[in-house]
Amino acid sequence: MARRTVVIGGGAAGIGAAGAAKAAAPAAEVIVYTAFEDVGYSPCGIPYVHGREIPDFASLFLAEKQAYVDAGIDVRYETTVLGFDPAARTVQVEGQGEGPVEVGYDALVIATGFDYEPPGVPGEDLSGLYYVKNIRRAMEWDKILDSVRHAVVVEASPLGLEMVTALAHRGIDTHVVDPHPWALGELCDPDIVAPVQESWADMGVTMHWNTTLRGFAGDREGHVRAVATSDGELPAELVVVATHKVANTALAVAAGLRTGMTGGLVVDDHMRTSAPDVWAAGDVCEIPHGLGGLPLQGLTGSHAYAQGKVAGTNAAGGDRAYQPVYVPWGMVAGTWMIGGAALGEVTATALGVPHVVGKATGISRARYFPGVRPVTVKLLAEPRTLRLIGAQMVGGEGIKERADFLALAVRKGITLRDLASMENVYSPPIGALNEPIVTAAQAGVAT
Amino acid sequence: MARRTVVIGGGAAGIGAAGAAKAAAPAAEVIVYTAFEDVGYSPCGIPYVHGREIPDFASLFLAEKQAYVDAGIDVRYETTVLGFDPAARTVQVEGQGEGPVEVGYDALVIATGFDYEPPGVPGEDLSGLYYVKNIRRAMEWDKILDSVRHAVVVEASPLGLEMVTALAHRGIDTHVVDPHPWALGELCDPDIVAPVQESWADMGVTMHWNTTLRGFAGDREGHVRAVATSDGELPAELVVVATHKVANTALAVAAGLRTGMTGGLVVDDHMRTSAPDVWAAGDVCEIPHGLGGLPLQGLTGSHAYAQGKVAGTNAAGGDRAYQPVYVPWGMVAGTWMIGGAALGEVTATALGVPHVVGKATGISRARYFPGVRPVTVKLLAEPRTLRLIGAQMVGGEGIKERADFLALAVRKGITLRDLASMENVYSPPIGALNEPIVTAAQAGVAT
Repeated sequence: MARRTVVIGGGAAGIGAAGAAKAAAPAAEVIVYTAFEDVGYSPCGIPYVHGREIPDFASLFLAEKQAYVDAGIDVRYETTVLGFDPAARTVQVEGQGEGPVEVGYDALVIATGFDYEPPGVPGEDLSGLYYVKNIRRAMEWDKILDSVRHAVVVEASPLGLEMVTALAHRGIDTHVVDPHPWALGELCDPDIVAPVQESWADMGVTMHWNTTLRGFAGDREGHVRAVATSDGELPAELVVVATHKVANTALAVAAGLRTGMTGGLVVDDHMRTSAPDVWAAGDVCEIPHGLGGLPLQGLTGSHAYAQGKVAGTNAAGGDRAYQPVYVPWGMVAGTWMIGGAALGEVTATALGVPHVVGKATGISRARYFPGVRPVTVKLLAEPRTLRLIGAQMVGGEGIKERADFLALAVRKGITLRDLASMENVYSPPIGALNEPIVTAAQAGVAT
Repeated sequence: MARRTVVIGGGAAGIGAAGAAKAAAPAAEVIVYTAFEDVGYSPCGIPYVHGREIPDFASLFLAEKQAYVDAGIDVRYETTVLGFDPAARTVQVEGQGEGPVEVGYDALVIATGFDYEPPGVPGEDLSGLYYVKNIRRAMEWDKILDSVRHAVVVEASPLGLEMVTALAHRGIDTHVVDPHPWALGELCDPDIVAPVQESWADMGVTMHWNTTLRGFAGDREGHVRAVATSDGELPAELVVVATHKVANTALAVAAGLRTGMTGGLVVDDHMRTSAPDVWAAGDVCEIPHGLGGLPLQGLTGSHAYAQGKVAGTNAAGGDRAYQPVYVPWGMVAGTWMIGGAALGEVTATALGVPHVVGKATGISRARYFPGVRPVTVKLLAEPRTLRLIGAQMVGGEGIKERADFLALAVRKGITLRDLASMENVYSPPIGALNEPIVTAAQAGVAT
């Protein structure tokens, strides 16, 4: 009988794992179980359809269902995995009209993703609370948005930033409530996110920082009508709950798998869990940071997909390792792009990591070229060696490419001195005389 | 008496040198001699004013003349340097109504830039031949362009590419004549520049590759009316001569300074020439390539400015070194951005440098996000170590930032394996799930 790899979850990690397992061992059987109606779409695009920047949800789908059939991947839609038994190497599944059945596996990949942390306040059961995740639900919510006049976004997390921007684009009176003193408080430095907040103010967004969520108030029909906060009651027909993402480990914990300090599954460098023949990938697991090994959970779709490919390859009998992460990140928020890599200044300070800072503001094109925008770069380095340990940026262009680069620069031990003498492309429509990374590094070397 | 630094030339290298000399020794005297009416503008912007992408020439000026006065830099406009004597430490100058005078110096910086290589064919003395360089002449040419219907660009050099694109934008029937088999033949691989050539064809540009220039034919008034080539006679009221840039070393050679194999001045890592107390910077000198030390001449304004700063600092008594170059380059041509770093495939092959190639085409944003464009990345590496030795790219976005990064990656010995496991930002409006650099590196590792 052919070797069978079972994947639980049809998101980026699960689909990455299934494709890699099939590629590593084409004759083997690969089954994907998903509780949803679809796999292989981009949930990351949902806020941009809501914001009317992408015309429709259909374009978010990567492939037709037939493509998975053609690839020899057996996707079981709307099927719930009730549990699994690593000793017996079985999963218990239910769905598509069938009662619970036991299915044997040779290798299992857990790709069950994340859940939003429950707000933990009264009124969580009201309708009108939107947890952005599933595309079919998003299509329904998108119609509702047409009649929404007042919305509250709970927490300025990465998704929160995208949704605030989308709702403001949509012309909805939008408030954001967050316990931190500034947006993206767990990730981003205040000086970097300040222009985003200014642009939100210009777009009519009302921000409530250092503000505690107290509850949701409903009308007689059980629909939310207001959000109670330490900054007063905010009327809202819609609440986007963009709280912290927690690893969806319920099945894995029930099966006795080990979790770490973030609550995510512990995996080794081959994405192997603590149970034999069980791998994991994506938001369900935690991954060591390249600097100091601190475990991280809740990275990006790109990380989930890459981890899925490693887990799937190994599940199918291959041998691939996954590197510790330096987490380049970036997004559009308000009228800006923000991003970075590895440690920000606030995080480094909180962790007690000694550092010097080099910061500079430059421009994205020649100063006279139409479309030129400011680009602010902040670099953090070890004091004596000047090895780069992190970067944060805000600008109008080219943030993603710089973040990718600076994450690799941290990983490879590149120093501020290296960056201070870096050459750069100078061409009026695409690059200025002075690259802001270079200017920031020169400032850091001079400290 | 205060120490006096004399700078010959008011371009990026000269102005960089003057500013750095003043910064390094604020009490010292700094004199800049220029034959032109202006300093401190961006000649690189001229093609984009001609192409109507930048509204006016005024915006190309970096600063008013008063700014140099305020900075304590004594700029002598429209003044010709007739010669200099390193033994006597004097320059002989003439201009602004004064006859030749001797001026003493403590340190001299040669920043005399480049000249276009003369075409060396009959008819070079006709009017209507445009050598893009000086901004006042460009303002006059810009008015002439209004009545030009047929133009020929001689050589698809970097400036040639910009001017072809600009003239086509301007609605002028544009032909390009070049002895190489494709555009940018000395720098760029044919597969990389192919989309540029396709977009030129769409814009109505006629290309004549493998074509020898034979001469310029004039009318009775001595104005060009056609260009004679091995591909026939091309009617033209305007010819842009965008031939190879040669180092303008006449003064330095007359003073006995050493030149190298490119014809540029030989300088050490402190930008010191072979003569005592004489430094050089910019297009007049040659700089060793970081891979193998081959001398290069005719780099970019960014290189000239950085070299000027090093030369000026050292001329004023400081101690700064300039690194060998890996030459990130990039530009907009047709409807594309092209760029790269260090060695391309054609150059590596011509030099007999063994290499493996990894190439991939990806996308600049999520595949469904408006404005998404293809990005093709080609990476070259040493066969065994897989150390990166060069890159070439063509795409719609983010080429400049990637070129900067890949040039530093070559310098720092980063390998295809490092790049194959690089993390990347994934966010629909700014970055795709898979970074094309990573995909290209994975292809290269697999070879």
